[in-house]
Amino acid sequence: MTARAFGAAPEPGACATGPARRDAEATKAAIIRAARYLLARHAHADITLKAVAERAGVSPPLILKYFGNKDALFARIMSFEADADALLDAPLAALGRHMVHHLLTGQAEHGADPILRIVFAPLHREQGDTLRTNFRTQVVERLRERLEGPDAGVRAELAVGTLLGLGVMYGIARGPHVRGTPIDEITERYAPTVQAFLTPP
Amino acid sequence: MTARAFGAAPEPGACATGPARRDAEATKAAIIRAARYLLARHAHADITLKAVAERAGVSPPLILKYFGNKDALFARIMSFEADADALLDAPLAALGRHMVHHLLTGQAEHGADPILRIVFAPLHREQGDTLRTNFRTQVVERLRERLEGPDAGVRAELAVGTLLGLGVMYGIARGPHVRGTPIDEITERYAPTVQAFLTPP
Repeated sequence: MTARAFGAAPEPGACATGPARRDAEATKAAIIRAARYLLARHAHADITLKAVAERAGVSPPLILKYFGNKDALFARIMSFEADADALLDAPLAALGRHMVHHLLTGQAEHGADPILRIVFAPLHREQGDTLRTNFRTQVVERLRERLEGPDAGVRAELAVGTLLGLGVMYGIARGPHVRGTPIDEITERYAPTVQAFLTPP
Repeated sequence: MTARAFGAAPEPGACATGPARRDAEATKAAIIRAARYLLARHAHADITLKAVAERAGVSPPLILKYFGNKDALFARIMSFEADADALLDAPLAALGRHMVHHLLTGQAEHGADPILRIVFAPLHREQGDTLRTNFRTQVVERLRERLEGPDAGVRAELAVGTLLGLGVMYGIARGPHVRGTPIDEITERYAPTVQAFLTPP
């Protein structure tokens, strides 16, 4: 279920299957996805609720109903909390593999990975710093707390760095070689790169 | 010599040391840097020559004199040719180390690395594809041609991916741990990560 799919139906009532199919959670997810899409392409200050609503295929008042106001919506889409839950959900010994596989399936299935939002920080001036702070505390520091041995902070940053690099190559630069290789094969090849920083040999 | 430094002097003639100090090459470099700065923060279509001129501390006609027109200026700043020359300027056995060191010194000295421009591709719609094509042919394919053994295309993309990830962590996410560690130490730690894709053990 992508923001693009919703974008094709400007009014929920216009769906062939009727509005009942779009429950609240799916609608919220569509709004968040639309806001994230726009946030990767426009400065925070230039994004209107109307644009988010249009892309999500909902009305602006519906966004207000679910999120309160634009600032609250953006605070939500600038959080990495839920994404970090999913990204870090594996035992440390298998975490490199899990992180790589999670990133690649997110890219292949949704055309984006929420973790990659950090690369758009320069677009957003002060809000870029919110994104950076959230990224640090909600992703990197949380990973760091699980690492043993010396230099855990540097190692956590480098592990996340390798992952971001794969995401940039796959999802942004769209490297034809990695995109043409099965996800399991890339995972096999790249997992040790990430794992080496998590649990140095 | 940074775009910011030039930005402080709106007119060349206003420099205390006089216009003679700003030779043509330095002025061109300031213009390119200003255009790149803006291209990381605004969609291509929204960037005016006037904005580039203001940031570079020159007049718009001077940009036209050096680059012809806006399209020619943007074609120039969307090229990775010169950057790839510098990035790949080492023998294969030492290339991982060179690439990492080159990226980190660029980040530390200029606050940006030209290679990282690829992460802003989504901002620029069709011009984003120009950026992607240039990146592929001028950086990744050129590296691939130097690699021996199987899967050279995937390995070139993954090697460049690891490098981009370090750049994102250092320059965009601004990880405090890597930024607080001497460049030589990060190079020592990260070079094998890149090298493993160039010359697999």
